[in-house]
Amino acid sequence: MTQALPLATLYGPVAEDMILVEDLLESTKKVEISALKRMLDHALESRGKRLRPALVLLAGTFGDYNLNRLVPLGAAIELLHTASLVHDDVVDGAASRRGRPTMNSLFDNAITVLLGDYLFANAAEMVTRTGSIHVTRLFALALMKMTSGELDQDAAAFDVGRDIQHYLWRIGGKTAALFANATEGGASLAGCDRDSVEALRSYGYSVGMAFQIVDDILDFNGDEAEMGKPVGGDLREGTVTLPALLYLERFPKDNPIKRFFTARRNREEHLQEALAGIRTAGVLEDSMEMAREYVRRGNEALSALPSTPARQSLVEIGAYVLARRS
Amino acid sequence: MTQALPLATLYGPVAEDMILVEDLLESTKKVEISALKRMLDHALESRGKRLRPALVLLAGTFGDYNLNRLVPLGAAIELLHTASLVHDDVVDGAASRRGRPTMNSLFDNAITVLLGDYLFANAAEMVTRTGSIHVTRLFALALMKMTSGELDQDAAAFDVGRDIQHYLWRIGGKTAALFANATEGGASLAGCDRDSVEALRSYGYSVGMAFQIVDDILDFNGDEAEMGKPVGGDLREGTVTLPALLYLERFPKDNPIKRFFTARRNREEHLQEALAGIRTAGVLEDSMEMAREYVRRGNEALSALPSTPARQSLVEIGAYVLARRS
Repeated sequence: MTQALPLATLYGPVAEDMILVEDLLESTKKVEISALKRMLDHALESRGKRLRPALVLLAGTFGDYNLNRLVPLGAAIELLHTASLVHDDVVDGAASRRGRPTMNSLFDNAITVLLGDYLFANAAEMVTRTGSIHVTRLFALALMKMTSGELDQDAAAFDVGRDIQHYLWRIGGKTAALFANATEGGASLAGCDRDSVEALRSYGYSVGMAFQIVDDILDFNGDEAEMGKPVGGDLREGTVTLPALLYLERFPKDNPIKRFFTARRNREEHLQEALAGIRTAGVLEDSMEMAREYVRRGNEALSALPSTPARQSLVEIGAYVLARRS
Repeated sequence: MTQALPLATLYGPVAEDMILVEDLLESTKKVEISALKRMLDHALESRGKRLRPALVLLAGTFGDYNLNRLVPLGAAIELLHTASLVHDDVVDGAASRRGRPTMNSLFDNAITVLLGDYLFANAAEMVTRTGSIHVTRLFALALMKMTSGELDQDAAAFDVGRDIQHYLWRIGGKTAALFANATEGGASLAGCDRDSVEALRSYGYSVGMAFQIVDDILDFNGDEAEMGKPVGGDLREGTVTLPALLYLERFPKDNPIKRFFTARRNREEHLQEALAGIRTAGVLEDSMEMAREYVRRGNEALSALPSTPARQSLVEIGAYVLARRS
């Protein structure tokens, strides 16, 4: 058994059952290869918010709330999320995440790639425990969207010629697909009718979009201490997110982002100018308004469902996603 | 449609149907992200032997030979195999494989990790097309064994203290698990009875073990031109395979492998001495005898099945695995 989770209040009616997800995740750390065990302990440490598993359980309350099927899906989605973070940190060469050293900074890149693969395998095994080929298929499709989004982000690095539509497509794959999978999968496992499944899928997708937009805003104005990583990392890696896109739109000529991407000298100077410009041009507020709009759409989708404590909890999660500072 | 496959004779009764696997693999290359398309073209080029998909179809002939289910499993297993090769080459920092540059040498490590992830996702999506949660679960379990084997190989690098039992466990995961999955999965999809499924699983496992042992022998005495990579690569990376283990057993004192692993100077000299020693001490022949023994066990398992052209083809595949020179 593990300690109660920090977001117990937020997760309302499913807060206690989240311990079952935690226990299942804990059980995946029981492996013989000692190097792997150390890595799993680090990668799956229990300070995570477990937002996606909570969405699975909350969605499941709108039908047959069968924890034998819902808990494995929640754990599978958290494992998949963790696997993708582990690989992203290798891809980005990141040194820290949430104030803790990344796997690739503690171990070498090679073994970190294999750890990510092991977590993917674990996730795949876990989702088959739901016993549902339909939900397993949705899960695989979500993974395809995630990896497509990540590949696209890498392919589009340092490219200022993409538009907002393209950005939304990318974060739809990279982030929202897994949120949507959590709510759609939970509702499907619970045997909800088609309209309820679609309402919950739509809610998950919208909140996922908001989550990523907020993430991209925090990369410019977040609290470095709370986030545990330096701000401006996206732009430094050439990742053009919503605030940068809006700033490029507003100042198409002689934009410091373009100078940073193309200059051979004084690059740090151009970067700092770009970061300062983005912080003061009002584009962060406009980005936040777009995130709010997604949460509004998510809540609208929920209105098709009966008014229950779980629905209230989903609304609060949307508000939390907008309010978070790290 | 793609051209006929080189191993048409070997694959006997399923040779023509292998074109369906090839077409399905071809269809996975149709993606919008152009960088991804280029990478998929390279990773899935059709000169591969497609040994594992052939095993799926051959196993399927012993029951209800339904290509709508067998072909997706064959393609899924080939995708998984390809994904693991792509990541292995990143992990090993390999520059070439079968005479062609590796993905990680053509593109950078970061995007190659993501390409591997995309192929894993593709494989997971593909296996769910079988419509069988049981077969999907077997597939996920095989992936867990594969990644455990790879992780263990990395953890045990430059360690001369492991025994043959440990080596067999490792290659059982790294290689034989996917061969076993091909024949067990094919037989399960075809609705074979329990004894036939077990016979085919056992055959696949045994041939997979032989395949890896031969691979490990070829790393010492293979034809560099045909293999398209330099010999001695395993030992150079610290991977202690069967021939090296037997050589360490035979000469426990002042063994050049130990000197190579621990020396700070003249390392290349110690390595060359170790390679020459392994080639002349008879341990390659002893290793080959062990591979033959696995193929014999595989054929023994097949004796539980009716004598059909497919069974004959499986026997010939075992002989081919032993005879290959690259």
